[in-house]
Amino acid sequence: MELDLVDQQPGGFDALYGLEVTDASTDGITARVPVRDELKQPFGLVHGGVYAAIAEGLASFGTVLGVMAGGKLAMGISNHTSFLRPITEGVIHARAVPRHKGRTTWVWEIEISDQDQRLCALSRVTVAVRDAPASSP
Amino acid sequence: MELDLVDQQPGGFDALYGLEVTDASTDGITARVPVRDELKQPFGLVHGGVYAAIAEGLASFGTVLGVMAGGKLAMGISNHTSFLRPITEGVIHARAVPRHKGRTTWVWEIEISDQDQRLCALSRVTVAVRDAPASSP
Amino acid sequence: MELDLVDQQPGGFDALYGLEVTDASTDGITARVPVRDELKQPFGLVHGGVYAAIAEGLASFGTVLGVMAGGKLAMGISNHTSFLRPITEGVIHARAVPRHKGRTTWVWEIEISDQDQRLCALSRVTVAVRDAPASSP
Amino acid sequence: MELDLVDQQPGGFDALYGLEVTDASTDGITARVPVRDELKQPFGLVHGGVYAAIAEGLASFGTVLGVMAGGKLAMGISNHTSFLRPITEGVIHARAVPRHKGRTTWVWEIEISDQDQRLCALSRVTVAVRDAPASSP
Repeated sequence: MELDLVDQQPGGFDALYGLEVTDASTDGITARVPVRDELKQPFGLVHGGVYAAIAEGLASFGTVLGVMAGGKLAMGISNHTSFLRPITEGVIHARAVPRHKGRTTWVWEIEISDQDQRLCALSRVTVAVRDAPASSP
Repeated sequence: MELDLVDQQPGGFDALYGLEVTDASTDGITARVPVRDELKQPFGLVHGGVYAAIAEGLASFGTVLGVMAGGKLAMGISNHTSFLRPITEGVIHARAVPRHKGRTTWVWEIEISDQDQRLCALSRVTVAVRDAPASSP
Repeated sequence: MELDLVDQQPGGFDALYGLEVTDASTDGITARVPVRDELKQPFGLVHGGVYAAIAEGLASFGTVLGVMAGGKLAMGISNHTSFLRPITEGVIHARAVPRHKGRTTWVWEIEISDQDQRLCALSRVTVAVRDAPASSP
Repeated sequence: MELDLVDQQPGGFDALYGLEVTDASTDGITARVPVRDELKQPFGLVHGGVYAAIAEGLASFGTVLGVMAGGKLAMGISNHTSFLRPITEGVIHARAVPRHKGRTTWVWEIEISDQDQRLCALSRVTVAVRDAPASSP
């Protein structure tokens, strides 16, 4: 596997909604997502799925950073996101911190705030650590 | 407010990831999302945020259907999605059913499966029911 | 290990709050808890921790039933209980059903109702399946 | 209602499992629970329901402290507890902190650790704030 996870910005779904990782280590990840109409639900607020996606993306990314050197894979088990305050414009800021780095699971807490630093969503993401499948030569 | 929620397909974020509602009432909503590369995480699986977004979209939509006639608004409180089996291709199928229709909160359970009808994610979404702000004339 | 889990009623904390298992297989567990003042919070309702404990007890028990023959252990990862309607008297009824029986995790959904069969709490419990430690001779 | 919540130690279920509040304000609550065999599951670990109950008890208590002066009631909506590391002996320590004090919901995060200050469980509890029923004269 030659994923250059550290150097490059996200692709796939993380790119679709606009995740921009600004700082990343196994001790925490900081990211931002600019708000645009395509991220909103019918009432003009940022869609709850965007917060959940940010949390999921950061926790998975951070766990991969921590376990891939040991030949392990990371795979999300669950994502629990609470919505505290709506965001309608500006930039969404996220900070993910690992609260448990176990042999078989990592647990992350993710705080999401608006550009005025008000806490807008809280997420807990549990990521399973698994053996990577043996690669064929 | 003139949202024609019932007749039209989703816009905003729900349109971005491709939600297609195929059946909707306050007793349950059925929807599908075709898998494409833009919905995946770095390892080629559908991103966990997609499942959470589907669950959130359906639960919010269903609650709005149920309460807007009474002049109320719906607003997500929390979304807890568990990932049971990865999806990599085909069509994602979702079915949302309300388990509690309270005066102040509705609670939905959403089952997400792949095109072989295997259960792939389970979500519980809690939606607050609030008074709509008085509209100015 | 000689836990006779199947034949005997619960001990420890499950006995303290009064769990009575009335039917148990790896496809579902039914149980009841008689309400008494010692299970209540200050306002006279059954304490939320009681519902969470019932869900946890049943999911752990059911997973053990399913994996111990294969030399595995079960260990709770998370418990998410939503409170829908208070109970103040009578008997609490619970039904736990496994929604996913994976190699490394089992996921259960638990419905808790009052004696009038009204749904009062919903819980999702994720249980890890682990290798049992090698026993010394 | 004349609940003297601040001065007295817990009763009901909180007393049954042994909750001892050592410090309480609307900005955070600290408590302890001595481990005893009656708090354990069949494998000798503290039962997951105990952690959930502690979290629920503290979050409800703290919300009541914050809203009862304004004539409001507090009522748990959901409790999501993750189990990170087992406890088998000594004293369980808990610290609950409100992360959101909204008009209609408060959200608490509760950290539970063993007597060696290792994080053993994390919980998020959402509590609804409701109008108290009008009292009869």
